[in-house]
Amino acid sequence: MMKLPEAIEVVEVGPRDGLQNEKTRVPTAAKIALVDGLAAAGLRRIEVSSFVRPDTIPQLDDADAVFAGITRRPGVRYSALVPNEIGLDRALLAGVDEISVFTGVTDSFVRANIRMSVEDSLRRFAPLVARALDAGLLVRGYVSVAFGCPYDGEVAIGRALDVTASLIDMGCTEVSIGDTIGVATPGQVARWLDEARRRLDTTRLAMHFHDTRGTALANVLVALDAGIVVFDSAAGGLGGCPYAPGASGNLATEDLVWAMSGSGVATGIDIDALCVASRGVAEHLGRELPGRYLDSCRKY
Amino acid sequence: MMKLPEAIEVVEVGPRDGLQNEKTRVPTAAKIALVDGLAAAGLRRIEVSSFVRPDTIPQLDDADAVFAGITRRPGVRYSALVPNEIGLDRALLAGVDEISVFTGVTDSFVRANIRMSVEDSLRRFAPLVARALDAGLLVRGYVSVAFGCPYDGEVAIGRALDVTASLIDMGCTEVSIGDTIGVATPGQVARWLDEARRRLDTTRLAMHFHDTRGTALANVLVALDAGIVVFDSAAGGLGGCPYAPGASGNLATEDLVWAMSGSGVATGIDIDALCVASRGVAEHLGRELPGRYLDSCRKY
Repeated sequence: MMKLPEAIEVVEVGPRDGLQNEKTRVPTAAKIALVDGLAAAGLRRIEVSSFVRPDTIPQLDDADAVFAGITRRPGVRYSALVPNEIGLDRALLAGVDEISVFTGVTDSFVRANIRMSVEDSLRRFAPLVARALDAGLLVRGYVSVAFGCPYDGEVAIGRALDVTASLIDMGCTEVSIGDTIGVATPGQVARWLDEARRRLDTTRLAMHFHDTRGTALANVLVALDAGIVVFDSAAGGLGGCPYAPGASGNLATEDLVWAMSGSGVATGIDIDALCVASRGVAEHLGRELPGRYLDSCRKY
Repeated sequence: MMKLPEAIEVVEVGPRDGLQNEKTRVPTAAKIALVDGLAAAGLRRIEVSSFVRPDTIPQLDDADAVFAGITRRPGVRYSALVPNEIGLDRALLAGVDEISVFTGVTDSFVRANIRMSVEDSLRRFAPLVARALDAGLLVRGYVSVAFGCPYDGEVAIGRALDVTASLIDMGCTEVSIGDTIGVATPGQVARWLDEARRRLDTTRLAMHFHDTRGTALANVLVALDAGIVVFDSAAGGLGGCPYAPGASGNLATEDLVWAMSGSGVATGIDIDALCVASRGVAEHLGRELPGRYLDSCRKY
């Protein structure tokens, strides 16, 4: 029989990864309400925004204001994506608990996103990670396109594990393995994690699945069976996938919580309060959010 | 590690269960094109229609014409739902390979659907099943609301297994266990099948999951791990759920095929040809079909 843990840790990436991939810019006040609503719903890890250059990702050009506006709850870890030293300066000023650094497995994808090769990104992040750790922050590394790349197709597991190992070696406290375009299938995830276990300390890994082709929760199950207990998801399934024309990107936090709660796996999250937070931000996006659970309890 | 079989059998229920739950009536010619398209895509089991009284389910009032219009492919099993002796007469005339009988676990749900209690439905089906078997047909039984009921809430596993055992005892060659309103979670399915194995020959079971809350494929995985190899699904996710306001009902066949193929589990189905068939029928429904894979490769 499949292994299920007693509890999982949910990393809410909607305010950052989600909103970054929505066409519509959400007002700062609505972002603050979203983050506070998520914390009130029981989320204990929230990626709030990204301290990138405002012209790079206009949807997240108010990261400082969002951090200034949220009400910190004890026990909640508020994090932000940081691309460089200037970003880290801003993150430290904003009082983040954790930073994330973003790279991936293929040069094509990483170049398209952060205009440098994978090698160069790792070289650049090493001193950044060291400085963040010195400042007492936690550091999360993102390995995007770990299962497939919109430019290069399927990705060799060995190459993905090399990048993961580099991030762990430079001190990342956690590495999030991303199926950025939602192509991973359960069998592929099982093989991936099987190889990972031979090379890495997989207790450092989080899994980040997209539901583009409906496989996100099935992939979560496989990962649970392999001992992974940290999962990324986005409120309501915020964030389309820029490389796939369909509506669905990130695994919806509601879908994850519903599936886990019914299976006796604790998340600490109140699904009704979570839906309220998701509906609140959806009003600003001009589209229904793609999460299945949220859709199933839509009011007509 | 989770168990995956070499192959699964996909039972396409879109033309019957799917179209029955769509508000819009699809023209007979489009239904014929759908069934023929599904067979061309490699589906080997297709539930084509329902021989009910035409006023009961107007969406399927052309079952005889659909059967007369399709082009039979060797190796494809064409089935139909049959509620009574008159229905069986029509099914035999139409030359079906298999009939299905529909009941469920709770009296409330079964009464709402076929206006009799569960017990009465079983009593009525016994001679019908015997006659169909005598005529050389295969017989499938449906156990709806096996995990939860829109009227009665959660359903006791023992009661669901009683109904399943009755259908097997009366000669059903297969029993499809339905999560009709899409509330089942992976842990619940695991417990259900664990109890089922103690009481029944589970090689007779098929699983019928709805994706209303995003759990369908995760539930399929759990069922595979428990040794189940027959799964119901509907092209494009045809068929909203009449008891949930959201868009999504049946597990989309494309999502199932994508997840299985990538996992090394054979289905015999060409996903591109399947998408063509789904898009063909979607044109008549006035809504996008909810299947994730189909949506991800939508043309703009």
